[in-house]
Amino acid sequence: MKVLVLNSGSSSIKYQFIETTTRQVLARGQVERIGMDDAVLSHVRIDGDTVKFSAEILDHNIAIEYVVAILLSKNHGVIKDKSEIEAVGHRVVHGGEEFSGSVLVTDEVIEKIKENIELAPLHNPHNLRGIIACKRLLPDTPQVAVFDTAFHQKMPEHAFIYGLPYELYKKYKIRRYGFHGTSHRYVSKRASEILGVPIEKLRIITAHLGNGCSMAAVMYGVSVDTTMGFTPLEGLLMGTRSGDIDPAIVLYIMGKEGLSMAEVNALLNKHSGLLGISGVSSDMREIIEEMRNGNPRARLAFDVFCYRIKKYIGAYSAVMGGVDAIVFTAGIGENSPDVRKKICEGLEFLGIKIDDEKNNSPEREKIITTDDSLVKVLVIPTNEELVIALDTAEIVSKVLANTK
Amino acid sequence: MKVLVLNSGSSSIKYQFIETTTRQVLARGQVERIGMDDAVLSHVRIDGDTVKFSAEILDHNIAIEYVVAILLSKNHGVIKDKSEIEAVGHRVVHGGEEFSGSVLVTDEVIEKIKENIELAPLHNPHNLRGIIACKRLLPDTPQVAVFDTAFHQKMPEHAFIYGLPYELYKKYKIRRYGFHGTSHRYVSKRASEILGVPIEKLRIITAHLGNGCSMAAVMYGVSVDTTMGFTPLEGLLMGTRSGDIDPAIVLYIMGKEGLSMAEVNALLNKHSGLLGISGVSSDMREIIEEMRNGNPRARLAFDVFCYRIKKYIGAYSAVMGGVDAIVFTAGIGENSPDVRKKICEGLEFLGIKIDDEKNNSPEREKIITTDDSLVKVLVIPTNEELVIALDTAEIVSKVLANTK
Repeated sequence: MKVLVLNSGSSSIKYQFIETTTRQVLARGQVERIGMDDAVLSHVRIDGDTVKFSAEILDHNIAIEYVVAILLSKNHGVIKDKSEIEAVGHRVVHGGEEFSGSVLVTDEVIEKIKENIELAPLHNPHNLRGIIACKRLLPDTPQVAVFDTAFHQKMPEHAFIYGLPYELYKKYKIRRYGFHGTSHRYVSKRASEILGVPIEKLRIITAHLGNGCSMAAVMYGVSVDTTMGFTPLEGLLMGTRSGDIDPAIVLYIMGKEGLSMAEVNALLNKHSGLLGISGVSSDMREIIEEMRNGNPRARLAFDVFCYRIKKYIGAYSAVMGGVDAIVFTAGIGENSPDVRKKICEGLEFLGIKIDDEKNNSPEREKIITTDDSLVKVLVIPTNEELVIALDTAEIVSKVLANTK
Repeated sequence: MKVLVLNSGSSSIKYQFIETTTRQVLARGQVERIGMDDAVLSHVRIDGDTVKFSAEILDHNIAIEYVVAILLSKNHGVIKDKSEIEAVGHRVVHGGEEFSGSVLVTDEVIEKIKENIELAPLHNPHNLRGIIACKRLLPDTPQVAVFDTAFHQKMPEHAFIYGLPYELYKKYKIRRYGFHGTSHRYVSKRASEILGVPIEKLRIITAHLGNGCSMAAVMYGVSVDTTMGFTPLEGLLMGTRSGDIDPAIVLYIMGKEGLSMAEVNALLNKHSGLLGISGVSSDMREIIEEMRNGNPRARLAFDVFCYRIKKYIGAYSAVMGGVDAIVFTAGIGENSPDVRKKICEGLEFLGIKIDDEKNNSPEREKIITTDDSLVKVLVIPTNEELVIALDTAEIVSKVLANTK
């Protein structure tokens, strides 16, 4: 099935057009600066043909019109008729407690996504805009929503309830949700394939280390705990996010610096993390370069980053009564052998033996532990778009089969 | 040496009068409701003689006068002359970054404690009142300050730095301090004595589970990490404190409920924790009773409490590259076999094998693992007063030796 995968942000839409049977990405690209008169569409076809142009693209409707148009274009396209877009799969950040899996988009689903806007005010409205634009433009094409939170919805209550008055959970749904679920799901499943062991028999710790970072304890195929919480601020140190801090600090800073709620929120989300500690960069590559140049605060940022992950590896091993595999993915996880090595140092007692040669090898997907390491550590490039396409194809096929 | 140990709170002073050579508590007691005309002094002598009386006690000066008077009293006392109080040891909550051990109280030390008031506004002012009252009343008696934070001051930087803009650390000293240090120090040392292994060879995880709860990773005698942070709010679930939460929740609640900073602070410190989740009690004994009666929210509070501790056992094992012993102490840690059992369930992979009979036995100080358990789990009643007395005697002896 040919599926258009859309990831709609506030001023950008990323897309991939995937043939799910062959898993081929027929075309991919993005529209940036939506809302401006100099928005940019960049498009790459499977054969390498590349095109980039600027236009006035004032909203998501027009942006998706351009995406469909380029897919149909004689010179740069990959299809001849709109109907060849057999389904559209959307990334939706927050599915709240309603969605523990991907779903066919219906009016009711749209209502539920709207209800969850309050839980993800920076993401759900834009995801929804993408869905509504597609409904208008491709009214006969089935659409599927794939939620970042869904994979974590089977977490037990003792892992998702905070130590707050229970009424706040009932009244405002304040609980741990977790994010990056599509990525954690993909790499844990892929790890089981690589290891040749059914996922129902594996206790896997997945570390998605990109600009946002999160980890999950995936026990026998189920996410039983994850580091991000009510929002993506909790847990690991990230590029510009603080991760875990004493909650009293939020109030202390507000009082001391005379900051508003919005200002302290920006401080914690935009000016903290690797950037805050190092004062240099939110980018791990630059942090490592500065560290090698002898910058002590870059070294500190690197150390804190790795230390937090090490602690969660221990915590999640305890949660699952042991660990069989650890997976590193996303920008930093896939590309930084230094980070992986530092994290795993001292974890020999868990049965982890890193093979430096493998860790430093150029392969993108690999096992980086020695053959006799009891716990396998893997590097797996994440592929959220593929998961969205496959989920979409599966759900749409079922619906079509039922309506026949 | 005969040492008067004082723990001065806002409206109460607890005291013990200890002969450090024999470690005997010659007398102990407390003054409550300081500031009221019906304050109460309760006093117990080593022979069991008990007295309790009410009086107008308007400030800490008068309270300590009463304490000294009762120690001197013909009927209930244990000394004949003030000079038999050879030294006074004070519990001081916050020593900031200045104090990594106990110190003789000098004018300079008093200044430093004053400077740290902002870091512990609920404790340091009262601790200081006790010190100043003793200076007035016992001007020739040396005094020693023993800090709750001192034992954790050797933590490495990557464990104490938060993922915040580094300037906030420089400007306001926002970092992890940790508390209950005197207790973590005492029980880790005691564990090494019981196990007959030098503390320099042990990686110990200590869990102080009282009304406030904290854990520490004590590696070769040094606290290398601890759960409480900038304030005692962070970390474990406590009687009425939330422990770890997504910091974004603080702002979300403020916005939703229209709470002031003081109100949300009270919510997190006074209405959360076991009480908040269960809606029943902040007391673990009542939680367990309610849980046995089938109350699902009491069960949830119990589960969350134990789950958090289990996670930190894993995390601190990872931090230390393994663990040799785990110590439970304080009210819940000493008295709840249910809590200890639940926490250690599923940790067999770390080498922990709980012996149910030992766990349930009436001994107060004990090893509760099987003889072949690789990791030893101990229950050790904490004794902060004894540590304060011993530190005081040691420091004062040195000073006296030097001045001779």
